[in-house]
Amino acid sequence: MSAAPRTVRAGLIIIGNEILSGRTQDSNIAWIAQRLGALGVRLAEVRIVADVDDAIIAAVNALRATHDYVFTTGGIGPTHDDITARAVAAALGRTLVRHAGVVRLLEAHYAPRGIEVGEARLKMADLPDGTELIENPVSGAPGFQVENVFVMAGIPKIMQAQFASLSGRLAGGVPLIARTVACNLPESELAASLGAIQDQFTDVEIGSYPFSQPGGFGVKLVLRATDGGRLDAAVRLVSGLIEDLGDTPAEETGG
Amino acid sequence: MSAAPRTVRAGLIIIGNEILSGRTQDSNIAWIAQRLGALGVRLAEVRIVADVDDAIIAAVNALRATHDYVFTTGGIGPTHDDITARAVAAALGRTLVRHAGVVRLLEAHYAPRGIEVGEARLKMADLPDGTELIENPVSGAPGFQVENVFVMAGIPKIMQAQFASLSGRLAGGVPLIARTVACNLPESELAASLGAIQDQFTDVEIGSYPFSQPGGFGVKLVLRATDGGRLDAAVRLVSGLIEDLGDTPAEETGG
Repeated sequence: MSAAPRTVRAGLIIIGNEILSGRTQDSNIAWIAQRLGALGVRLAEVRIVADVDDAIIAAVNALRATHDYVFTTGGIGPTHDDITARAVAAALGRTLVRHAGVVRLLEAHYAPRGIEVGEARLKMADLPDGTELIENPVSGAPGFQVENVFVMAGIPKIMQAQFASLSGRLAGGVPLIARTVACNLPESELAASLGAIQDQFTDVEIGSYPFSQPGGFGVKLVLRATDGGRLDAAVRLVSGLIEDLGDTPAEETGG
Repeated sequence: MSAAPRTVRAGLIIIGNEILSGRTQDSNIAWIAQRLGALGVRLAEVRIVADVDDAIIAAVNALRATHDYVFTTGGIGPTHDDITARAVAAALGRTLVRHAGVVRLLEAHYAPRGIEVGEARLKMADLPDGTELIENPVSGAPGFQVENVFVMAGIPKIMQAQFASLSGRLAGGVPLIARTVACNLPESELAASLGAIQDQFTDVEIGSYPFSQPGGFGVKLVLRATDGGRLDAAVRLVSGLIEDLGDTPAEETGG
């Protein structure tokens, strides 16, 4: 047997008072999680923090020390509440410098429309020293990478374009494969035998997720592993358990 | 002038591999954020962590030390991956004890249906020492409170019922009032004057949120304050700024 593949882990920081107020429903977390998973990078922790320097600095420093990659979304525009670049610079002990490449990008973006870049937009060119840009084909201002921290926009359409630009820089591990088996049994009837299967398959992650449906509760069992053979073997045992308890396992696609 | 009201702050911990995998789209954060806001409690940070003891323990201890209240959702069922109670007990340095009141609740819930409670369900009665229960009118197992930590279910329907049961225990501050003004100007044209308004109104939080729409980008300006008069004064200035720049401010309801 070869050594178990190393797990590549990422942390994600959502910078946004609007998510914390409940006014905006986040959609970036699930999108980023899925894309990272497909690259073999596991999203291990998410923090949603306010547009406050100390909160951003603390989250960046906590996550960059313990994860292979850190991603942030939000707070990179031209207004007073866009403080991500200066907070990331402070977290990394770097100075904020006007990036000549971004100035040129902004000029190239606005000049054809007869718009002068101006001081407010130039604020978006003030980035931590030693930054590598993350191309933004949607609007003028790029994201940026410093060390293992990747800074992206909060607007989903822009963030997604930036993520597509940077994904070639990410070295992933072996992706997890997932299979999902649903049943209508109460979770507590499955619990003991399911725990025994989990003990037997320490290389398969078995999650049990009850859900409410008309007529009561059902359970989805989500199994994840890097080794397809081990995954299939565990799914066979879980399906057999459901049948032994008098129900019919229903496999869901798209796990 | 009276002293500024103290801000009551809460942290929220979402315990769930399913959110981190991107398979499940979270809906609890926005719901809890809105309810807390209405009670005058400000959601200041959210952490989404894996179903792993050390991750839960670290998040509970970090947030309970720095926030008035900590809420958790998820991981309180009967299966092997439900580890919230033992992790919260470990975080608080308390032992896990079988709670006689929960045993009675479970018996009362299942006996009428001819179901024996059994060891798997009894696991849901093993709670940190010194726990106060959070009633769960939807299904059998309650949530619980220990010190300033409130532990709830992950299923939205159950979590919402538990939150309704506990909200009387929360001492909030003065709720923030919000007003939202939208316009079609680029954020960068507003930036300098908006920053000046923010400097003038340090007791009003002004957020600028660009959004994409057919034909380009617009901006929503969200203003929040505890003092309605100050809020209205700031909104007047912001609306005037938008008019000065040749656009028409559009106030949104439901802030």
